[in-house]
Amino acid sequence: MDDGSYDLAIIGGGPAGSSAAVYAGRAGLRTVVLEKQISGGQMMVSPLIENWPGDKGISGEALSARMKQHAELYAPLKEFTEVEGIERDGGLFHLRTSEGDIRSKAIIIATGATHRKLGVPGEEELSGKGVSFCATCDGFFFKGRDVIVVGGGNTALLYAIYLNNIGCHVKLVHRRDAFRAEKALQDQVAKFGIETVLSSVVERFLGEDSLDKAVIKDLRTGLSKELPVAGAFIAVGEEPNNGVAKMLGVELDHEGYVNVERDMRTNVPGVFAAGDITGGLKQIVVAAGEGAVAATSAFESLMSPYWLTRG
Amino acid sequence: MDDGSYDLAIIGGGPAGSSAAVYAGRAGLRTVVLEKQISGGQMMVSPLIENWPGDKGISGEALSARMKQHAELYAPLKEFTEVEGIERDGGLFHLRTSEGDIRSKAIIIATGATHRKLGVPGEEELSGKGVSFCATCDGFFFKGRDVIVVGGGNTALLYAIYLNNIGCHVKLVHRRDAFRAEKALQDQVAKFGIETVLSSVVERFLGEDSLDKAVIKDLRTGLSKELPVAGAFIAVGEEPNNGVAKMLGVELDHEGYVNVERDMRTNVPGVFAAGDITGGLKQIVVAAGEGAVAATSAFESLMSPYWLTRG
Repeated sequence: MDDGSYDLAIIGGGPAGSSAAVYAGRAGLRTVVLEKQISGGQMMVSPLIENWPGDKGISGEALSARMKQHAELYAPLKEFTEVEGIERDGGLFHLRTSEGDIRSKAIIIATGATHRKLGVPGEEELSGKGVSFCATCDGFFFKGRDVIVVGGGNTALLYAIYLNNIGCHVKLVHRRDAFRAEKALQDQVAKFGIETVLSSVVERFLGEDSLDKAVIKDLRTGLSKELPVAGAFIAVGEEPNNGVAKMLGVELDHEGYVNVERDMRTNVPGVFAAGDITGGLKQIVVAAGEGAVAATSAFESLMSPYWLTRG
Repeated sequence: MDDGSYDLAIIGGGPAGSSAAVYAGRAGLRTVVLEKQISGGQMMVSPLIENWPGDKGISGEALSARMKQHAELYAPLKEFTEVEGIERDGGLFHLRTSEGDIRSKAIIIATGATHRKLGVPGEEELSGKGVSFCATCDGFFFKGRDVIVVGGGNTALLYAIYLNNIGCHVKLVHRRDAFRAEKALQDQVAKFGIETVLSSVVERFLGEDSLDKAVIKDLRTGLSKELPVAGAFIAVGEEPNNGVAKMLGVELDHEGYVNVERDMRTNVPGVFAAGDITGGLKQIVVAAGEGAVAATSAFESLMSPYWLTRG
């Protein structure tokens, strides 16, 4: 019987949220997962995942489906259900969603993050077919091949070093005439002899079934040229999906990620967070681990004398 | 070619170690995993795991095998290889093992923890057949059934509350006449009406294929009686396997677990830790997530200017 009343509402149905649902449901918490789109989160756009422990290779769609089926054994997973507002009344959270109202005693924020895109032709179409937003996830496919990294911050330079280290031929493309990454990383890029292409932007990506070329425009000369590449790693920033976190008034760091303790508590009692929204290493297995911790902490918090006296 | 020289030595072949191996190998680090017994760690003794995200149910043996096969794509996994001594020479670690010497530039400690046992007849034989050391892992199998929890600390009381919450009929057995768990947990046990059996010890566990009875001795009267139970959860402490950590001189907490930062660095440069040895929630998916973080941090540390200047 679903009267909209739960012990725990998990917001976000990616790996953090679905892992949290398994742990919370198994602990006996009446749990619901609210996902504004379809479950799976950023996994869904990955054609092949090779670093989910125990699986040599699995599509993001297949892993998402497995995690969803697993979570649904323990908690309803409501897709296309967006949280539009949250009010707190005593110890109870009232969530206004696109599909009706929900009440819960605790919340896990598992809303993830979104890769910033370049917004150029071909980027969307070739995403997962050569265009990638994560060197740690996809770099290995491009061993020994020509790739570009786009960006000038720490992540871009780390991607370039990572890809160079596994034997890719890397060009680092940045729209400004200097990198804003920390000096140590710039030194490494220089020492490794990684080629840099400054004051240049990607105009479009070309390719039929997979990426063939990037069209790069030199902003100083205004001239464009085609660069043959098998892979393009875009590292121009990420946006934490912190709308829900802001509604709840939890403390964010300077980049907008939710600050958590090791047990995934936020500074707001009854509110926990897990996965990409907490910053750190944005990987499926990390998010799933954090989801387990957040659910267990939520359980322990709900079993506290405060809740016992309120039945 | 294995000349015993590596970028990274991972000590321990459980979920933390094998996940770290996947991430380190994919990052291009020459990596080795050293496991003193067979790989899998504490997973190996679990007949059925229901909380590894994406798998509704899998045996510990099967999950261990999958993780091992995955890790071995990226790094050799040397079983029955015990680390007997470690010396540091400049930035290089020299590991003396039962199977020969290893040199590495960085180390991940993933040596796990060991559940303390009661040491009574039937405990070993019925482990995984009703006798369990982890309520979070196995409690769900015992919904609606009679179980005992053995112990008097925070973990024991949390197990009792957890099991009570999922509908088990719980008796909490403790050898002393008072619990040493924190007051708040004792209050909860009382408020939930969980039955306590104080000044009593388990003498033996009885059962053919699975646990049937626990023989409990009242230390005040000296009388023993048989208690019919489907499950027995033993929470009399855990020992961090911190021998390697001590050889390396890393900072431990008051219980002997390795202190880590969120990126899994220890206080000793070049040394990282992941999994149960770091304390926290001792779950497979948590360990695997931490392994991924530790390997990525090790990679970033090895790519630092210090290592670059040393070729």
